[in-house]
Amino acid sequence: MNYFSSDFKLGILGGGQLGKMMLTETRKFDIQTYVVDPSAEAPCQFGATKFFQGSLTDYQTVIDLGNQVDVLTIEIENVNLDALETLENQGKKVYPSPKTLRLIKNKGKQKQFYKDNNLPTADFQLFESTSNLKSQISNLTMPFVWKATEGGYDGNGVKVIRKIEDLNNLPETECIAEIMIPFKNELAVIVARSASGEIKTYPVVEMEFHPEANQVEYVICPARIDEAVSNKAREIALKVSESFNHVGLLAVEMFQTEDDEILVNEVAPRPHNSGHYSIEASYTSQFEQHIRAILDLPLGNTDSKVAGIMVNLVGEEGFSGQVVYENIEKIMAIDGVTPHIYGKRETRPFRKMGHVTIVNADMTEARKVAQEVKETIRVISK
Amino acid sequence: MNYFSSDFKLGILGGGQLGKMMLTETRKFDIQTYVVDPSAEAPCQFGATKFFQGSLTDYQTVIDLGNQVDVLTIEIENVNLDALETLENQGKKVYPSPKTLRLIKNKGKQKQFYKDNNLPTADFQLFESTSNLKSQISNLTMPFVWKATEGGYDGNGVKVIRKIEDLNNLPETECIAEIMIPFKNELAVIVARSASGEIKTYPVVEMEFHPEANQVEYVICPARIDEAVSNKAREIALKVSESFNHVGLLAVEMFQTEDDEILVNEVAPRPHNSGHYSIEASYTSQFEQHIRAILDLPLGNTDSKVAGIMVNLVGEEGFSGQVVYENIEKIMAIDGVTPHIYGKRETRPFRKMGHVTIVNADMTEARKVAQEVKETIRVISK
Repeated sequence: MNYFSSDFKLGILGGGQLGKMMLTETRKFDIQTYVVDPSAEAPCQFGATKFFQGSLTDYQTVIDLGNQVDVLTIEIENVNLDALETLENQGKKVYPSPKTLRLIKNKGKQKQFYKDNNLPTADFQLFESTSNLKSQISNLTMPFVWKATEGGYDGNGVKVIRKIEDLNNLPETECIAEIMIPFKNELAVIVARSASGEIKTYPVVEMEFHPEANQVEYVICPARIDEAVSNKAREIALKVSESFNHVGLLAVEMFQTEDDEILVNEVAPRPHNSGHYSIEASYTSQFEQHIRAILDLPLGNTDSKVAGIMVNLVGEEGFSGQVVYENIEKIMAIDGVTPHIYGKRETRPFRKMGHVTIVNADMTEARKVAQEVKETIRVISK
Repeated sequence: MNYFSSDFKLGILGGGQLGKMMLTETRKFDIQTYVVDPSAEAPCQFGATKFFQGSLTDYQTVIDLGNQVDVLTIEIENVNLDALETLENQGKKVYPSPKTLRLIKNKGKQKQFYKDNNLPTADFQLFESTSNLKSQISNLTMPFVWKATEGGYDGNGVKVIRKIEDLNNLPETECIAEIMIPFKNELAVIVARSASGEIKTYPVVEMEFHPEANQVEYVICPARIDEAVSNKAREIALKVSESFNHVGLLAVEMFQTEDDEILVNEVAPRPHNSGHYSIEASYTSQFEQHIRAILDLPLGNTDSKVAGIMVNLVGEEGFSGQVVYENIEKIMAIDGVTPHIYGKRETRPFRKMGHVTIVNADMTEARKVAQEVKETIRVISK
C-alpha cells in the first residue's frame, strides 16, 4: 500500500489535542486525513486534509466519515460503536476494533476480561446497581472502590467507600466494588501493535503525585524503579495488548503494590497523556508509532534518547475566559523545555490546555527543571 | 507580547517545505499563521491558519499579507523586496530585514560585505558583465570560479573556468571571478539571533560528497573535524550573523581549506537544508528556533541529543509524474530512521521531494545506516 503523497485517506474520529499531535505526523509523512469533531474550533481544525464538524456519537456521521476513508481510527473512545461495527463488517479497516472499544468502555467487562485472560488485576465484584451493592454490603470489606461501569471520566464515576454513608448520593448505575490494594507507584506502559502483529513496548513511566493533593504532577520516563519490576510491567502490558489482539497503541495503566506485584488498572486504546514525553525524548513519538501501527508500517524504536518528564498545563482554579500562559517565556529560557499549546482559546479550571516536556541527559537534572517549570508557569485568563 | 492562542499573527512568504516545517512549530505553540505561495498545492496549504495563493514577487501581494500580520518572515529569498521595505518603513516587524535580503541577493555585494567586515572569504573581483571579465582575463589566474551576482540557484549561475573557452555561452550578466582555493571540507553553521540580540550557534555540520559525482550525499552533525577547527567555524559564523545584525536563522556555509583556514562561502537567511537533522537530533529544532528568534522569545538549547545525519530525497533521473517512494517501508524498519515527505504529488528528476533523518547514539552506526538508507529508497513515479 502506498500511503505517502497518495490518494490514501486516514479518518480520525475526534479533533482534540491527541488528534492534533497525530496530524503532526501525518503531515510529516504527507498522508491525507479526514477528521470529525463536534467543535468547529477543535485543535484539528488546522492540519487535516479535510475537517468536518459533527457529532461523534451520531451513527450517520461516523458512517459518512468511514465511507470516505481507507482506514479509520479514533483519538477519543466515546464514539458511535454501532457505526464502527457496521463499517468493520463492510470490510473497512477500523483500529482499534469496535469490539475492543465496547469491551473497554464497560469497566465490569474490562475487569472480567483481565480475569479471563489471567492478567493480574485487583479483585472485584460486579453489581447491577448501586442499591444492589448496598444491599450486599455485609459481604464486602471496607474500604473498597466503587466504580460506575460506564460513563466515568477523569476520576468522575469513582469513589473510595470507607463507611456505608459514602454510598449515599452515588448514581444508581451498574457498578463494581474493587478491593483497595495499597500501592507505592502508579505506572504506565504504552504498547504498539501493528495489524500484522509486530509488537513493541515503550519504557515504563511513573506518575509522581503531589505529596498532599492527590494529583499527578509529573509523568517520568523512565520510571525510577527496579529493573525487575520494570521488566515485569512491560511483560504484562505486552500480554494485555496481545489478549485484545489490539492494533494501534494501547496505554496500560498499572499499580506497583507494596510487595512489587503489578496490577493492571485500566487501558486506553490510543495515544495517551502518559506518552507525551515521547515527542521529545523517544526515537519514535507515540503519535508516529500509532500511525505506523494502524497502517501496518514497521514499528519505530521505542527507546529514549534522553530522560523525559511531562507536566500537564491545566487551567488554574478561579480563571475562566481567554487564556494567557503566564511566564511561558521564563520556562522557555530553560534548556530542554518545550511547551505544547493545544489551541483552546478559552481556559476553565482544570481544563487540559497543554503540556510541557522537559528533557535532559540526566534524570536528576530533568526532575529539578520539571519542578521549576511547574512552579513558574500558570494557565490563567485575561 | 502574548503569542500563544492569541490574536497575534505571523506572516510567512513562501509555502514550500521550509514553511511547512515552520508550521509544525507554530501549531505546537498555537501561533496563528498567514502564508502566501504561488502554488495552490504548496506543502503549506495545510497547517496554516490562512493560506493564500499569490505571487511572492508581486508588490501588492506582499503588502497585503504584511498588513494582515504582526510579524513577517520568509521561507524563500526571492520575494518583492520593495514591498518588504515599505512595510518595514511603516513599522512592521520584518525578519530577516529587507536590507539584509538585498545584500545577500547580490553575490558581489555579499562578498564585499564579508571583506568590509573582516570576515574571511575567498578573494574575488567584480565585473559589470561577462564580456567585461573576458576582456580582463589576462589579469586573472586560472582556474577561477565565475559566478553571476544574481539569479543563480542550486549550482546554476556558477562555473569553474579552467580555460578561456569555458567562458563561452555564459549569460551576459554582472559577475564575479573568485579564486579557487582547494578545500577538504564543506561545513555549515546555523546561527540563531533574536530581535533583542540573544545569539546561539548550532554545532558545525559537514557535507559529505559522493566520491565520484560531485554531489552532497550526507549532512552530518556533528562534523567529524578537530575541535579547534569546529570552534573557529562557530566563531566566524557568529561574527557573520552579528555583522548583519541578523534576526532569525542564518545558515553560514563555509570551506575548511587544506591548511585548516575557514572561509565563508555564502549565507541563507532562514532555516536551511543543512539544519534538517535538528528536528530529530537537537534539543531545539531549527524551525522552532527560527520562530523563537523572530518573536524575540528566549532561544532554545542548540546541543544535540544524538548524532544526526540527513539524506535528501530527490527525484530519480528518468522519472516524472505521480511520486512513489520505493522501499520506504524498508528504511522505516531500521531504528532511528525518519522520512519527511514534503507533500509534492509530482516528482521530476532532481526535485527535492523530502529528506530522511538518521539518528543514533553512535556516529559510526548512524553513518552506516545513512548509507543503507541512501542505497535503499528511491523516488520514482507510478
